[in-house]
Amino acid sequence: MIFKQLCTPGSGLLTYLLGDSVTREAVVLDPLPAQVETLLTFMAERGLVLRYVLETHMHEGHPEAALALKQHSEARIVAHECAKSEHVDMCLRDGDLLYFGEETLRVIHTPGHTPCAVTYWWEDRLFTGETLLATGAGRCHPRAGGDPQKLYHSIASRLLTFPGETLVYPGRESKGRRLVSIEELRRHNNWFTNRRGGQVFLRAYQRLLPDKAIKEESNNTGVQEDDVHHYMPGQDVSASS
Amino acid sequence: MIFKQLCTPGSGLLTYLLGDSVTREAVVLDPLPAQVETLLTFMAERGLVLRYVLETHMHEGHPEAALALKQHSEARIVAHECAKSEHVDMCLRDGDLLYFGEETLRVIHTPGHTPCAVTYWWEDRLFTGETLLATGAGRCHPRAGGDPQKLYHSIASRLLTFPGETLVYPGRESKGRRLVSIEELRRHNNWFTNRRGGQVFLRAYQRLLPDKAIKEESNNTGVQEDDVHHYMPGQDVSASS
Repeated sequence: MIFKQLCTPGSGLLTYLLGDSVTREAVVLDPLPAQVETLLTFMAERGLVLRYVLETHMHEGHPEAALALKQHSEARIVAHECAKSEHVDMCLRDGDLLYFGEETLRVIHTPGHTPCAVTYWWEDRLFTGETLLATGAGRCHPRAGGDPQKLYHSIASRLLTFPGETLVYPGRESKGRRLVSIEELRRHNNWFTNRRGGQVFLRAYQRLLPDKAIKEESNNTGVQEDDVHHYMPGQDVSASS
Repeated sequence: MIFKQLCTPGSGLLTYLLGDSVTREAVVLDPLPAQVETLLTFMAERGLVLRYVLETHMHEGHPEAALALKQHSEARIVAHECAKSEHVDMCLRDGDLLYFGEETLRVIHTPGHTPCAVTYWWEDRLFTGETLLATGAGRCHPRAGGDPQKLYHSIASRLLTFPGETLVYPGRESKGRRLVSIEELRRHNNWFTNRRGGQVFLRAYQRLLPDKAIKEESNNTGVQEDDVHHYMPGQDVSASS
């Protein structure tokens, strides 16, 4: 198996390439414009044929990079059916299977960061996009339909129920980390095992936003703090952990 | 492939099981007495036949656990030829190959923690014992022939030269972590890319010992601080990083 993780300096966004070393078929996940040249060179040097460009969600830069890669191959651009992008060639639903060479990828719909967020499952690895990072939950995009309650459900009821040895490869670096196991995420996120996990999660999420993430969120997307407060469902949460 | 990581509470020592899902042949790495029952049950439930018990080094408890596992199987106990243990059935050297089912493990001699320390390399994973932990270099056992200069060489010239995506599965938890990539280790250990890396490493190692590790080392092995100072080769290091 050929496996490559690329980090875009500055943003910390992560792109992946998976290739079947026998048939030379490959897929790329979440490409960004800054990585296109590197990816094309890497594939040319190894005789890899790009079959799919997979989106865990429609992040800024993804469609441009996907189209650039498509120009050099027969690849199809693939995303969840909620993505509603004119560039998508193949719409996915939860439970779909994708094949490249003798390898299989499974699609897990994990809405929360955005409604179209999916996780790709290959062997003992999950490519979680911005749903689940190496240090815990990702953020929600309020204006893009993000929803903390759905994010909680996607993480707690779907992703964290995988075997502890499963590897999580996120779509963004967090605190210098680009990889984690499900076991470590369970151990370090006490809301997962807490009886009132959902409430604890939402309260923690709410506490996080005004202090720090909200500023980044505003900078990145133009969303104002008020928008997020209006959107957050945690205002009425009073339970203690 | 069947893959299991077990952590012994208290010590944080890590044990691994690898099994070929087709032929049902398995190996266990660095078992401890506390894990024997769990391992036997796990293998019985899955119809796995234990072929080898592999030691990354001869840690307290390893021989007892290996013998207990051997009683229930045809397994052979395997360690580096420097291990000099009466319980070892098969002595390894650098470059040796071990087979279980259709899987291959390669042996990399990585002395430093002890003279007999080896790393087992399987696909894109390295089982590094106490040579390389998830947060950086392991420690040396002075009375067991440990050697910081050899440790540096084993890590910098052998292990950290693997592709960045290679996964390191250490023999001990460190700072709550049980897994890391070679890429992250390179990024977070500045002595690796430093021109005078060896000197920086040894100085850092020397600084670490009297403050903290030395106490643990003394507690664990009965070594006195003076022994370690006598042993450490970094006394004459004057280079700045």
